Amino acid sequence: MDTIIEYINISGSFVFAVSGALIAMKKRLDPFGVLIVAFITAVGGGTLRDILIDRQVFWLYNNSIIYAVITGATVAMIFKSKMNFFSKPIFFYDALGLGLFSITGVQIGLEADLSSSICILLGTVTGVFGGVLRDVVVNRIPVVFKKEIYATASILGGFLYLFLMKLEVPNPYLQIAPILFIIIIRLTAVFFNISLPSIYKDKLKHG
Amino acid sequence: MDTIIEYINISGSFVFAVSGALIAMKKRLDPFGVLIVAFITAVGGGTLRDILIDRQVFWLYNNSIIYAVITGATVAMIFKSKMNFFSKPIFFYDALGLGLFSITGVQIGLEADLSSSICILLGTVTGVFGGVLRDVVVNRIPVVFKKEIYATASILGGFLYLFLMKLEVPNPYLQIAPILFIIIIRLTAVFFNISLPSIYKDKLKHG
Amino acid sequence: MDTIIEYINISGSFVFAVSGALIAMKKRLDPFGVLIVAFITAVGGGTLRDILIDRQVFWLYNNSIIYAVITGATVAMIFKSKMNFFSKPIFFYDALGLGLFSITGVQIGLEADLSSSICILLGTVTGVFGGVLRDVVVNRIPVVFKKEIYATASILGGFLYLFLMKLEVPNPYLQIAPILFIIIIRLTAVFFNISLPSIYKDKLKHG
Repeated sequence: MDTIIEYINISGSFVFAVSGALIAMKKRLDPFGVLIVAFITAVGGGTLRDILIDRQVFWLYNNSIIYAVITGATVAMIFKSKMNFFSKPIFFYDALGLGLFSITGVQIGLEADLSSSICILLGTVTGVFGGVLRDVVVNRIPVVFKKEIYATASILGGFLYLFLMKLEVPNPYLQIAPILFIIIIRLTAVFFNISLPSIYKDKLKHG
Repeated sequence: MDTIIEYINISGSFVFAVSGALIAMKKRLDPFGVLIVAFITAVGGGTLRDILIDRQVFWLYNNSIIYAVITGATVAMIFKSKMNFFSKPIFFYDALGLGLFSITGVQIGLEADLSSSICILLGTVTGVFGGVLRDVVVNRIPVVFKKEIYATASILGGFLYLFLMKLEVPNPYLQIAPILFIIIIRLTAVFFNISLPSIYKDKLKHG
Repeated sequence: MDTIIEYINISGSFVFAVSGALIAMKKRLDPFGVLIVAFITAVGGGTLRDILIDRQVFWLYNNSIIYAVITGATVAMIFKSKMNFFSKPIFFYDALGLGLFSITGVQIGLEADLSSSICILLGTVTGVFGGVLRDVVVNRIPVVFKKEIYATASILGGFLYLFLMKLEVPNPYLQIAPILFIIIIRLTAVFFNISLPSIYKDKLKHG
């Protein structure tokens, strides 16, 4: 279990670092600025989760995470010039990170004997808050609040994990299925521009 | 004592969730976005307080808080269409939450044997930071920094609590008096547009 | 060692409180708003560091920090009218705080037996995050992300500290040299408008 979480943490940090670096470069930050935003994006959600449940912060004694972030940010800076449109890779890496991190969050909540609703919440915090912090820090309106399904995908993935666990689905399917589920929901929502039904009756634009 | 804090936490979370949801709807977020902003507003201040003094985060083993937040956000979403002007209920619920949470913060500081000035500070953190985080996250300039008396009300309420405690005023008056005091100061400041004396000599507008 | 860290914490809090208060007054906040922003600027970085490594938050049982912040904010409010241009003192106090806090962060990381790269990171968090939080809270684009060398100075100072430690340079030179190094790098970068080489090939302006 711990090895799987470790592996997910490293690959999730890498993809979120890429996503963070791409957005930081859109804002034309200097190389260290790009690195810091990549770092915040990659570890922000998991760090908040660990602080909330008073668990040792996951990257503190784990240099692999730091190297994954530095690698992700460097790769993004080097291959940036090859990408004409940033939007698509950002959405893809973001969806991947969302799936990977949401499910680790749920698993870590279960290990800490927390209730089901708190586990789903921790999954969402882990998956979503790195991106929220990234957006707050570069003065963007957090993508999670835009109309495309984002936190919703994380919450639904958490429910699926708990449901499959009740059905005693074995590893690694127990992890892989909800991760894929989250990625598919998120990418489908982005590509087909699907959103939750509006709670606003009038037709005004977003404020 | 703990039951009173528990009760205040639940009702404070409910009213701050309503206030957070109303502001999120002004920004026309989707339902889950509204829920997340309601959650941040409701638990943000108390969570920061608990992390600062290394106390177990108050909502982690307490599903009532989560349900209070979900109920508050849902009520705000359902009855939203009945409200023509959002400003007044937002100010009212905000003032109520400020009073309730500021005083719990002071009490929890006292239980942790912290000095008087740190207790007042913890009260202000508990009462004010949910709203600061809410405003940062929806890209609003934090209401606490606007010219109406906000953090000031929390600080004065904290002083009153410590003063009444020295006079050995018994519960529940010890709690209720400073809570009402904070609410009255805050609402008076809003309705009569009172602010602290300006420290700026020239007459320029806010930047 | 602890006395030196204590002394640095107090003087660093004072200078960062001055810097935070000056920026808050540029945004024309009310006196308590100025005080809160001064407080966030002064203790934000060290608080995040302490929370990350699960160490007791440095100002919680230390009223001297609180008094240093109140003094710094008050001094800034009183002498504000004497300063025609805010930019220069802000840069100076900011550089001083950056140097002082970055090195305490590295030292505290070493005391907690963390790896060299995490120690340098903790130094950067301690030195930089108070300013990031200050800027986020007053809706400014964080100065750390602008093109002048800022986090870079903190990181280089951390490397110098570890290098001098390896050479067994004794105290207080071990502390003073990297602190001065950071201040000089930062001020040189500001006054001569030096920045890191751009990673952007086209000549567009900052977004």
